[in-house]
Amino acid sequence: MSDPFVVVGADAAGLSAASKCRREAPDREVVVFEKGRWISYAYCGMPYFIEGLIERMSNLLSLSPSEVDERGIDLRRGHEVVGVDPDANTVTVETAAGDTLEQSYGDLLVATGGRASTGAFDVRGLDGAFTLHSMDAAAAIDAYIAEPEAYDPARADVSAVDRERVDRNASMPAPETAAIVGGGYVGIEMAEALVGRGLDVHLFHRSGHLLSDFGEAVGERVETELTEKGVTVRTDAPVDGLVGDDRIEGIAFDGADGVETLPVDFAVVGVGIQPNTELLNGTGVDLGAGGAIRTDEYGRTSLPDVYAAGDCATAIHAVTGEEAWMPLGLTANRAGRAVGATVAGDPSPVGEIASTAAVKAFDMEAGRVGLIDAAAAREAGFDPVRETVTAGSRSGYYPGAAPTDVTLVADRDTGRLIGGSIVGPDRAAIRIDTLATALEADMTVPEVERLDLAYAPPFSPVWDPILVAAKVLNGALDDD
Amino acid sequence: MSDPFVVVGADAAGLSAASKCRREAPDREVVVFEKGRWISYAYCGMPYFIEGLIERMSNLLSLSPSEVDERGIDLRRGHEVVGVDPDANTVTVETAAGDTLEQSYGDLLVATGGRASTGAFDVRGLDGAFTLHSMDAAAAIDAYIAEPEAYDPARADVSAVDRERVDRNASMPAPETAAIVGGGYVGIEMAEALVGRGLDVHLFHRSGHLLSDFGEAVGERVETELTEKGVTVRTDAPVDGLVGDDRIEGIAFDGADGVETLPVDFAVVGVGIQPNTELLNGTGVDLGAGGAIRTDEYGRTSLPDVYAAGDCATAIHAVTGEEAWMPLGLTANRAGRAVGATVAGDPSPVGEIASTAAVKAFDMEAGRVGLIDAAAAREAGFDPVRETVTAGSRSGYYPGAAPTDVTLVADRDTGRLIGGSIVGPDRAAIRIDTLATALEADMTVPEVERLDLAYAPPFSPVWDPILVAAKVLNGALDDD
Repeated sequence: MSDPFVVVGADAAGLSAASKCRREAPDREVVVFEKGRWISYAYCGMPYFIEGLIERMSNLLSLSPSEVDERGIDLRRGHEVVGVDPDANTVTVETAAGDTLEQSYGDLLVATGGRASTGAFDVRGLDGAFTLHSMDAAAAIDAYIAEPEAYDPARADVSAVDRERVDRNASMPAPETAAIVGGGYVGIEMAEALVGRGLDVHLFHRSGHLLSDFGEAVGERVETELTEKGVTVRTDAPVDGLVGDDRIEGIAFDGADGVETLPVDFAVVGVGIQPNTELLNGTGVDLGAGGAIRTDEYGRTSLPDVYAAGDCATAIHAVTGEEAWMPLGLTANRAGRAVGATVAGDPSPVGEIASTAAVKAFDMEAGRVGLIDAAAAREAGFDPVRETVTAGSRSGYYPGAAPTDVTLVADRDTGRLIGGSIVGPDRAAIRIDTLATALEADMTVPEVERLDLAYAPPFSPVWDPILVAAKVLNGALDDD
Repeated sequence: MSDPFVVVGADAAGLSAASKCRREAPDREVVVFEKGRWISYAYCGMPYFIEGLIERMSNLLSLSPSEVDERGIDLRRGHEVVGVDPDANTVTVETAAGDTLEQSYGDLLVATGGRASTGAFDVRGLDGAFTLHSMDAAAAIDAYIAEPEAYDPARADVSAVDRERVDRNASMPAPETAAIVGGGYVGIEMAEALVGRGLDVHLFHRSGHLLSDFGEAVGERVETELTEKGVTVRTDAPVDGLVGDDRIEGIAFDGADGVETLPVDFAVVGVGIQPNTELLNGTGVDLGAGGAIRTDEYGRTSLPDVYAAGDCATAIHAVTGEEAWMPLGLTANRAGRAVGATVAGDPSPVGEIASTAAVKAFDMEAGRVGLIDAAAAREAGFDPVRETVTAGSRSGYYPGAAPTDVTLVADRDTGRLIGGSIVGPDRAAIRIDTLATALEADMTVPEVERLDLAYAPPFSPVWDPILVAAKVLNGALDDD
């Protein structure tokens, strides 16, 4: 075939694109190269697997290679794309067997994802120290936590798994004290998971409140919840490095009295991810926010016939209208699907992102959307006004009513809602979708205050917490 | 004083208006007439009081008379307004003591609420037969259900309560078999409450599915849930009448083989409410949808200086832009507050209604918004296209993921979202607020499909059920 759609990377964005293209243009050849053995796995499910909520690693796979095959997709695992020639419309591929081959493309999608950042330190080569950005890491962590005699190998029941790594970690003595480096959502979820596995957990966060992107109100409630559940939370505590020769022995961090070392026998570093763009080095492709591959509203890069989607690509932010880099699951799936439709002949915008996110921390739930940080809002040209209210999640007389903190951020001049967060133990996270919808509709805060939201005592008081927050923020806007 | 703001009715709309006016215009005299003894009670909480979830009736009061007094409001209970003279700007008031007085007004708010409909039959005079539209009825029902020796008079711990009625009901033998007439949300909530109190419960509904306003998908799931929890649900079973002389003995209904009679010793009739508009008889005021008092965007009636708000008044529907009558709690509070601001000199629209509602039925939750019924949509000038999908509430691998049915209705020509419902056991009800927001923003279904909703395995799969439904409905719209 002369005109195949070639995809690099077989996870959310890549396989969504490949599947959509095959469905819409059944005659078009679709080739997906995946350098590893894993495909289509639920990255976001790994902490819950480690926690033990999920019994088998195979539960985290959404598509098997044979299901991909049934869709008529030519999936080639163990094939690493090492170069792109945008003039010749070819990619160079190295196989696990050591062969090199050339593949021409009509359209190319780069869906290479991201990888864990480790900041100034590195976990490689240190037993008991991990990042969490692959299923092999999740399997290894799960094995490492277990007592050697208690580990059930059937937990890692996927043929793709790095069995040698799992066995080696399973054979080590079980850890007792864990350090988590980074209080973002992966760090929070890992804290819950490791407490669930019976460990003494210490969470280190560089800045003053956890979940920096969610704002202070969320950070404080989540910190309280973690502390109540037995996690030692250290904020304003940048980690200097991991201590140890072969196995991790401690965490060196900036404490109140200078550098301190906490002895640990387990560390998970989750300080963020970075986009995998190396494949396009030398092609002259434009990079954008976060160093990710710059894409337009259809997922097109600056190279002809080359698209990018998912954690390696930028997207357009719904509030700022500007380019942003927000590696999130829905973004990847949606953008992949849109690119698949576009290359099948049905041009489809990848959609804007509002950087909507939700997180669970034990019995606390939180969501965030848009611009919350004042500096970020100002940088985007807004004059942010922010209010946080605490309101009941249900009618006050109904059992289970719980304090829910809603933060709303508006632009002073226009009154437009530009961001918000919600935190509380009672159905708080899913309420963020209401704000995400208001924000994507460019609603003003007065419009939000007039929303006809549902009232039923078991679910919401007459004045939903979102309406209370809008009322208070309107008052602040009026006072100016 | 020459120019008081006079309010008729001291519940949600009336007291919201009075309070807001006093706050905004502290010098203005505000007089509230209430014909009964109760003020500011949570109508929607009564089923939960009867269920026993709420220990004391006083928990259902939001404002006491003394708190109203502290706000500078001249509250006069036991004062029934029996006439309005719109030419003279006066009302005629009869007091419980038998006096008659005249009161002039600068502005008048009619907030007389609604009363229970009983359809073709009447519960009056029949022991053990009740409607549920007053706190006295709730207290009486609570007393009636209890064994005489087990009833705790402290349950009805409010001085306003009709103690004689409570005592009489408490002294009767406890019922064993209850009929609920009407499968709307009050009927559903009462079914849950009475099962909770140990009764054998039979629910009669005139039409083919419960919760008619919520659409078939919700009705079916709720019927299944009620049945599983032990309620005998009879749909397509219009009730002909209540049987009995002094005390209720049975329910006569249209069964499969003609009129049947089910022996019961307890009946609650909840077939809807009707607006209390009699006060304005003879004034020439315009009535509108549902026979309620016609109001404009500021809550003004067709009479000069006379406003109406709450269950006795119409409102503007967000989807149709037309007048509608939807007696709901937020509508009343919001409209009252707006009228209070308007008469205080700050003209404030009462806001549109989307007829957003939510209901809990044991472990099932549901919400609805906008136009769901095809005939109603056509009557409003739309060409409705409807799809219902079943999707997971969480990532499939995460414990607690539950089937969630989302129904979306769009207008064929414009693709605009005009209504929807959501039902499921896992955080389904509160999700309706997302649809309410999309609907009030006049979003099209393609816009809904592109919403950046939160993804986190404990709360939502990558493709939220709402997004799945939008995708399917878009497919149906495209196929036309």
